[in-house]
Amino acid sequence: MGAENSAEASGYPFGVIRVGIVGATGYTGSELIRLLSGHPSAQITALVSRSEAGKPVASVLPHLSGLPLPPLSAFEPHQLAEQCDVVFLAGETGFAMEHAPALLRQGLKVIDLSADFRLKDPAVFAEWYGRQHTATEWLAEALYGLPELTPHDAYRHARLVANPGCYPTAAGLALAPLVKSGLVEPDSVIVDAKSGVSGAGRSRVSVEYLFTELNENFKAYSVERHRHTPEIEQVLSLISGQSVRVRFTPHLVPMTRGILCTAYARLRRRVSPEQLHALYTEFYREQPFVVVRPLGAFPATREVYGSNRCDIGVTIDVRTQTAVVISALDNLVKGAAGQAIQNMNLLIGTEPTQGLPLAGMCP
Amino acid sequence: MGAENSAEASGYPFGVIRVGIVGATGYTGSELIRLLSGHPSAQITALVSRSEAGKPVASVLPHLSGLPLPPLSAFEPHQLAEQCDVVFLAGETGFAMEHAPALLRQGLKVIDLSADFRLKDPAVFAEWYGRQHTATEWLAEALYGLPELTPHDAYRHARLVANPGCYPTAAGLALAPLVKSGLVEPDSVIVDAKSGVSGAGRSRVSVEYLFTELNENFKAYSVERHRHTPEIEQVLSLISGQSVRVRFTPHLVPMTRGILCTAYARLRRRVSPEQLHALYTEFYREQPFVVVRPLGAFPATREVYGSNRCDIGVTIDVRTQTAVVISALDNLVKGAAGQAIQNMNLLIGTEPTQGLPLAGMCP
Amino acid sequence: MGAENSAEASGYPFGVIRVGIVGATGYTGSELIRLLSGHPSAQITALVSRSEAGKPVASVLPHLSGLPLPPLSAFEPHQLAEQCDVVFLAGETGFAMEHAPALLRQGLKVIDLSADFRLKDPAVFAEWYGRQHTATEWLAEALYGLPELTPHDAYRHARLVANPGCYPTAAGLALAPLVKSGLVEPDSVIVDAKSGVSGAGRSRVSVEYLFTELNENFKAYSVERHRHTPEIEQVLSLISGQSVRVRFTPHLVPMTRGILCTAYARLRRRVSPEQLHALYTEFYREQPFVVVRPLGAFPATREVYGSNRCDIGVTIDVRTQTAVVISALDNLVKGAAGQAIQNMNLLIGTEPTQGLPLAGMCP
Amino acid sequence: MGAENSAEASGYPFGVIRVGIVGATGYTGSELIRLLSGHPSAQITALVSRSEAGKPVASVLPHLSGLPLPPLSAFEPHQLAEQCDVVFLAGETGFAMEHAPALLRQGLKVIDLSADFRLKDPAVFAEWYGRQHTATEWLAEALYGLPELTPHDAYRHARLVANPGCYPTAAGLALAPLVKSGLVEPDSVIVDAKSGVSGAGRSRVSVEYLFTELNENFKAYSVERHRHTPEIEQVLSLISGQSVRVRFTPHLVPMTRGILCTAYARLRRRVSPEQLHALYTEFYREQPFVVVRPLGAFPATREVYGSNRCDIGVTIDVRTQTAVVISALDNLVKGAAGQAIQNMNLLIGTEPTQGLPLAGMCP
Repeated sequence: MGAENSAEASGYPFGVIRVGIVGATGYTGSELIRLLSGHPSAQITALVSRSEAGKPVASVLPHLSGLPLPPLSAFEPHQLAEQCDVVFLAGETGFAMEHAPALLRQGLKVIDLSADFRLKDPAVFAEWYGRQHTATEWLAEALYGLPELTPHDAYRHARLVANPGCYPTAAGLALAPLVKSGLVEPDSVIVDAKSGVSGAGRSRVSVEYLFTELNENFKAYSVERHRHTPEIEQVLSLISGQSVRVRFTPHLVPMTRGILCTAYARLRRRVSPEQLHALYTEFYREQPFVVVRPLGAFPATREVYGSNRCDIGVTIDVRTQTAVVISALDNLVKGAAGQAIQNMNLLIGTEPTQGLPLAGMCP
Repeated sequence: MGAENSAEASGYPFGVIRVGIVGATGYTGSELIRLLSGHPSAQITALVSRSEAGKPVASVLPHLSGLPLPPLSAFEPHQLAEQCDVVFLAGETGFAMEHAPALLRQGLKVIDLSADFRLKDPAVFAEWYGRQHTATEWLAEALYGLPELTPHDAYRHARLVANPGCYPTAAGLALAPLVKSGLVEPDSVIVDAKSGVSGAGRSRVSVEYLFTELNENFKAYSVERHRHTPEIEQVLSLISGQSVRVRFTPHLVPMTRGILCTAYARLRRRVSPEQLHALYTEFYREQPFVVVRPLGAFPATREVYGSNRCDIGVTIDVRTQTAVVISALDNLVKGAAGQAIQNMNLLIGTEPTQGLPLAGMCP
Repeated sequence: MGAENSAEASGYPFGVIRVGIVGATGYTGSELIRLLSGHPSAQITALVSRSEAGKPVASVLPHLSGLPLPPLSAFEPHQLAEQCDVVFLAGETGFAMEHAPALLRQGLKVIDLSADFRLKDPAVFAEWYGRQHTATEWLAEALYGLPELTPHDAYRHARLVANPGCYPTAAGLALAPLVKSGLVEPDSVIVDAKSGVSGAGRSRVSVEYLFTELNENFKAYSVERHRHTPEIEQVLSLISGQSVRVRFTPHLVPMTRGILCTAYARLRRRVSPEQLHALYTEFYREQPFVVVRPLGAFPATREVYGSNRCDIGVTIDVRTQTAVVISALDNLVKGAAGQAIQNMNLLIGTEPTQGLPLAGMCP
Repeated sequence: MGAENSAEASGYPFGVIRVGIVGATGYTGSELIRLLSGHPSAQITALVSRSEAGKPVASVLPHLSGLPLPPLSAFEPHQLAEQCDVVFLAGETGFAMEHAPALLRQGLKVIDLSADFRLKDPAVFAEWYGRQHTATEWLAEALYGLPELTPHDAYRHARLVANPGCYPTAAGLALAPLVKSGLVEPDSVIVDAKSGVSGAGRSRVSVEYLFTELNENFKAYSVERHRHTPEIEQVLSLISGQSVRVRFTPHLVPMTRGILCTAYARLRRRVSPEQLHALYTEFYREQPFVVVRPLGAFPATREVYGSNRCDIGVTIDVRTQTAVVISALDNLVKGAAGQAIQNMNLLIGTEPTQGLPLAGMCP
């Protein structure tokens, strides 16, 4: 980090920036609180929850007992502009495209954890999300913030960051070196992903998310069509400079956190496992949050539990000429709140790893 | 079942056949006890456990308390020949090829739940299991008993049944109609399978199978090479009359029972989801233990928990021209002990569904 | 079972009785379907679900695919009277006291799995359930059916059976021999019980029952007051002939099925563990569904998973002069549907163990 | 913290002390690494593992990938004395009493996480651990470090800290205010505790700790006698100034982390829930790591997952005149590694909460 990129140069002269979280009581929101409460350059100054405004955080989220936090408050853009430098939006689809523009106009930097600003093409958004995009004027400016694949220069003048989806982060990091290399057929990519249940969020209150329905159970879901498909394709097409098509099947694992993504692609020409491994090692050499495992080793979700890392293992199935890449991350950290803080670090020009756990929690 | 196939015609005039289980205290063995203890045409007359011989079953397996069962005994082929008509071998790889011949020579019918007699080609066995086959003279005679794909005539004179592996059962049933139809490229098959931990058995006592290592964890294993690969290829090649190559990746799910198999294959020509569904419905029309779900629905493992069913859902990903088939079964029932009893029913000529649970246990 | 108690003598001359289940899609209702579908003396002729009337069972409960079952229907007492001999009520509190009288008046036998007819004293019901009892005229006649503690004679003329709660079954069986013996202080009983989540039922759809809220979590609930307290006291007071007071604390275990009840009582005089064990062994000698474990062994919930057994282990803590009794059962089987069928067997005079699994499913 | 208690005054003038961990690859050892790697006043300079010496940490513990750590090394007291100021011993029972004296003689401060120095009376140690204590000369000096109950003055000159057991921490914090108050009978205390499986450690490799044996299972263990009983009694007797006897029953919960302790004691005289709650609130007023929940609320283990907190809820069962206290902690953090670091902070005179997570991880 050069001096011109430091907190001071970015306009945060006191070293500590003031952050607000909208949607503070959801799983992503409360994970932001947990992580930011230990961040040396950030101070939480506003916590917005429309349903619980007025209550102390610990009365709604007892796991955050003992932390010095502001009480939950209603969503008031003007007040946020006074209290904060950066605002995280952790609401449902649609909230950000309705409310981010007002926050941005008041000079706030906004990191949106929803899907609202991820897809560049509003027609694609409409097709997959079943609604019109209502803030298309911000789509071009919004920075898709997958820090290992997004040029860091792009953060310098960014005001609005679209934080990637959990599956696109896992699949994007797993496949970027491969599709960029040109070694595989761009229309042969299969992403078979498995996620813990917390990806569904705290507001998905229906029979099918009851403990009794999911425990000791494993299933695919959204088999015919899942909204993260075009986002994965956008990431991979951009990095490879060609149109990539992906068959994507998500599954639900009876566990709370973690995504494991098993990706397959047909080779165009013979490559050895060693060559593939070297390609990945080189690609992620400078990235503190991506660990390419030694050849022959593959990551398990528990090894990145609570960590902001995404770990990757690769091999070649010589018999079928298929490249097999497995990535693992914690969907609430590298797949959501952690990556959002990584984006914040880049946005404010502080040390990119600040406040972000490297170690997984195991067991 | 015609009269000539009845228990009586098969030489079991008293209606009840006497069965022995070798390897009675393993997970597969004890599941055989549980299921056979309620079977109307079978009586358990011998339970062999080399490590626990002499003890009452309930002292080793308290979940079987209260059942009238013979005590655990040592492995004595002569004694088994006196006590039993049919013997199930639920031992480790290698036990059956060493001991089944002696049992067969004494006139017993043998159902082997290990891998010893599944692969027809001893060279393939040697390649994947890393040891020479020592009873190759029985390989041709051994009947590979996947009842929905094996002609029932073949059971009439069979003496030795090789009970399929859990993954090959799930993948074979998922893909048989598809590869047989010629609709897909036979070298494009990808099987991404997920299994509960009980598939590893009770004797796999090592750090990596501890509760603390697997709970809240999801991972792939044997990524580079898994022994069930050639068995899946053998099943699919046989049914389709062409050489099928499969990329197979097994994963470990933090649950006890259940396999979900997500299979992909590239289409050779356009097919609608409705056509694919009709193909499967027709293929399994007569099979009580295979339920093809309505178009748009896909099975979850919990729905076949404790059942001998294998449920299947199908679709076409039109964007990538990929057939997607998902199958689910209970690895200890349809994937092992239940299927072995289904084979026994066919072997002794009784009602094929006898003693086998149709309903899953849910929740 | 003497002849006068047989199915024929009880007025069920064809050997098979026709049963209806009201509340068929809840966890208790669907477990009744699963178990009764394999019962040799019962045929399911009516399945009532108010929310899903008109649908085939398998479309709502796919785990029951493949069974020959009537479709779900609306609640019509007249129709039930034509279709059934016995009706199980598996509805919410209040349903049975509103509707059971009409069914009884039409000559049906009713087994109610709710709390409506368990407490003999309507004032106690009102105090703990916060509502007036509206069918008090049936309270005296209702038979509290805990088969191991209820005299079997009482079933001969019974028309309405109140099926016990899951905790009272576990605690009642654990403590009955002890409090009856007079060995312990009747006001010193502590019941610390732990239950899988399925006890909460399928209609408890709220944030706190989401998978993500309960997985990898353990907690007490209803600490200050739980409705099963007076029922436990009623069972123990009746069997011991003295007023027993119980401190009861239920806990929620991150698993689907199973109750483990750890009960403590202060000794009035010195007793050896051997004497206590002999007392229990003698008390339950004739009971097929209660297994008293050998001295020094204690049951685990998995060992009775899917079984209708309740297993018990006992000891004396000599240092503190405390009797410690641990019981385990499957809350959906011996704690609900299985026990209800056990009651049905007694009601219709068939073999008491018919259709009920003895073996647990393990793993 | 006054100046005389600061890191500098304690002889750690550079602000950062050098720490070594012996037994680095066990669950407690690796949790120490995880937590200490983020501690602002500590630097890990030695990691000892006898079985894995010579390997990089991440090759054995991939969840710690990416951290700058020394390689695993053999146990060499002289080398440790050169490399470290403080050494944590996270070995099996017996290791510390054999090796701690040598480390202490070389001037190291030692925090022992095993049971070796917890019990003050070697006869009690011999009775419960079945072996003679071989370093009795250090028993008097060893400081039993339960920071909320141990006077902080005692740390000033301490060289050897005995880190409490997980159950004694949970039970001690739950019951200390109560037994000290004199409100309850000191011989009526019942501790019914439930623990996640990680308490068993990583070296307990046997069938009974396999995933398949514990998942979806709940049971008591060591019912007749558990080694933490005398330690709980020692803590409570010391704080109350009277001989306290405890009936203690531990249970195993199918989850990885967390202890919930449900404690009961008979009241000597009438006390209201409000009075009890006020007593606890006052007792723990100054303690950052003990949160007494509002009256009517009780903690769940998930709420302290990964946190160094112990949360407590209290009530009175008026009907039976029983005080009920429920405490929850993370057995690997407040119950082991976190508390050991809390002890280190007190030992070196730095801020007591430094490097220790307050927030739980939820979900």
